[in-house]
Amino acid sequence: MTTTTSSFRARFDAAAERHHSLLCVGLDPDPARIPAGVSTRDFLRAIVDATADVACCYKPNIAFFEPDLEEGMATLRDVIDAIHAHDLPVILDAKRGDIGNTAAAYARAAFESLGADAITLSPYLGLDSLEPFLAYEGKTAFLLCRTTNPGARDLQDLSIGEGAGAPAEPLYARVARLANTWNTRNNIGLVVGATYPREAAEIRAISPDLPFLMPGVGAQQAEIDEAVQGAMDARRAGIIVNASRAVLYPAAPDGRWADASRKAAEDLRDAINTARGA
Amino acid sequence: MTTTTSSFRARFDAAAERHHSLLCVGLDPDPARIPAGVSTRDFLRAIVDATADVACCYKPNIAFFEPDLEEGMATLRDVIDAIHAHDLPVILDAKRGDIGNTAAAYARAAFESLGADAITLSPYLGLDSLEPFLAYEGKTAFLLCRTTNPGARDLQDLSIGEGAGAPAEPLYARVARLANTWNTRNNIGLVVGATYPREAAEIRAISPDLPFLMPGVGAQQAEIDEAVQGAMDARRAGIIVNASRAVLYPAAPDGRWADASRKAAEDLRDAINTARGA
Repeated sequence: MTTTTSSFRARFDAAAERHHSLLCVGLDPDPARIPAGVSTRDFLRAIVDATADVACCYKPNIAFFEPDLEEGMATLRDVIDAIHAHDLPVILDAKRGDIGNTAAAYARAAFESLGADAITLSPYLGLDSLEPFLAYEGKTAFLLCRTTNPGARDLQDLSIGEGAGAPAEPLYARVARLANTWNTRNNIGLVVGATYPREAAEIRAISPDLPFLMPGVGAQQAEIDEAVQGAMDARRAGIIVNASRAVLYPAAPDGRWADASRKAAEDLRDAINTARGA
Repeated sequence: MTTTTSSFRARFDAAAERHHSLLCVGLDPDPARIPAGVSTRDFLRAIVDATADVACCYKPNIAFFEPDLEEGMATLRDVIDAIHAHDLPVILDAKRGDIGNTAAAYARAAFESLGADAITLSPYLGLDSLEPFLAYEGKTAFLLCRTTNPGARDLQDLSIGEGAGAPAEPLYARVARLANTWNTRNNIGLVVGATYPREAAEIRAISPDLPFLMPGVGAQQAEIDEAVQGAMDARRAGIIVNASRAVLYPAAPDGRWADASRKAAEDLRDAINTARGA
């Protein structure tokens, strides 16, 4: 139960094996859905404590903390400490993307001030906007590749012409191909929505070795089978399957919401393992 | 000197006319360059007070406040209040981009908790990721189109095939074309780097009516002429030219740094006006 300074990879690999789980729990606190009379901080701490031996990591999305400004940042830092107390890694979902010295400030906020082990980034500004994050030893950056939302098609599905040794392909495929070449320190992953299993399989063919962070997984075994089987790597791993609302806000008619969250996490962990045959 | 609730457009248009200025001052506080013994908050307040009748708006970049967590958010909110006390609009440079309910949380943080009048956004996730921002009446969203950094070419310059009534063109041009169609509420602008005047002129031809936020302007009149003349609209306006470090950290051998910042801002305001012939 000590906070180690191991790398994201080491911490993640150990947790995935120890808990036999590729489930990441997304922490998107919504005041309207948190049980009455419970603070956001206490709610998230209780969820972490209830699910810590079922998950392989946690993904707080900083957007849900920002509206509370000072209090939000204090809560986020506190929750990250609570996750580290279980020796589990934290992916800060921030989707940042800015130029040189600005990117360096974002990296300092995420990795030093908040203590996250990994972060999500937008690739729109190119490699030099990612460098300040990639330069941190032991940290990992997950680049947005193909997202779960309908609007993903507006840019990500645009067809890029052949060039520089790459075939004609959608923008998301080109991002995966660029990520391979940018991954010289073995600390890049991709965000690949579980809602588009065909695209996920296509991206896996391009990037056989990059870890995928997969949000948007459904509750049905058939959906999970399809998403996981197309995206897992040759070792039946290489995926981190994220569920947020399904774990945070399951029905709990008896009022035992933390137990209900644990049960939802267990069911998802098992469904993911069934899907990958592990 | 009261804080009004007017729209970004109304507040901006009034300030640009009142001050005969299209200069936006970027607020990127760097502790290593702030005069010794002066707090970030006092420094930024002094810069705002010294330049308020020379600028048309301010652009704090939230990245430079995030490493200080609680204190950073308090400082940012305080600086935004100081800008509003001069009845000037605030563009929060945040480059956010996330799906539906997450984007809504970011919009709430920027427009409600912090009180910004406009924001910069990444277009990578498509229209539905922008909608929660565009739905705010009176606010404006500037979409990253062609950025100033060398890595901009990695994705933004990729060649998109012909389709859906659009010609084959670079991704940044397609973003401008999409922005035109998404601009149904007249509250979208584009971020177009001043460092690439050829691309800026090309984007102006595609989007004759969208306001451009232009970072990266140099100190030389010839550079400013080239950037401004390619990007300005038919009314010799439609551009907001941002300078950050040139105004915040000019040489001040006599120690009168606020006066030096004012002088730097005046020179840039004049150079921009000379360039556009106004």
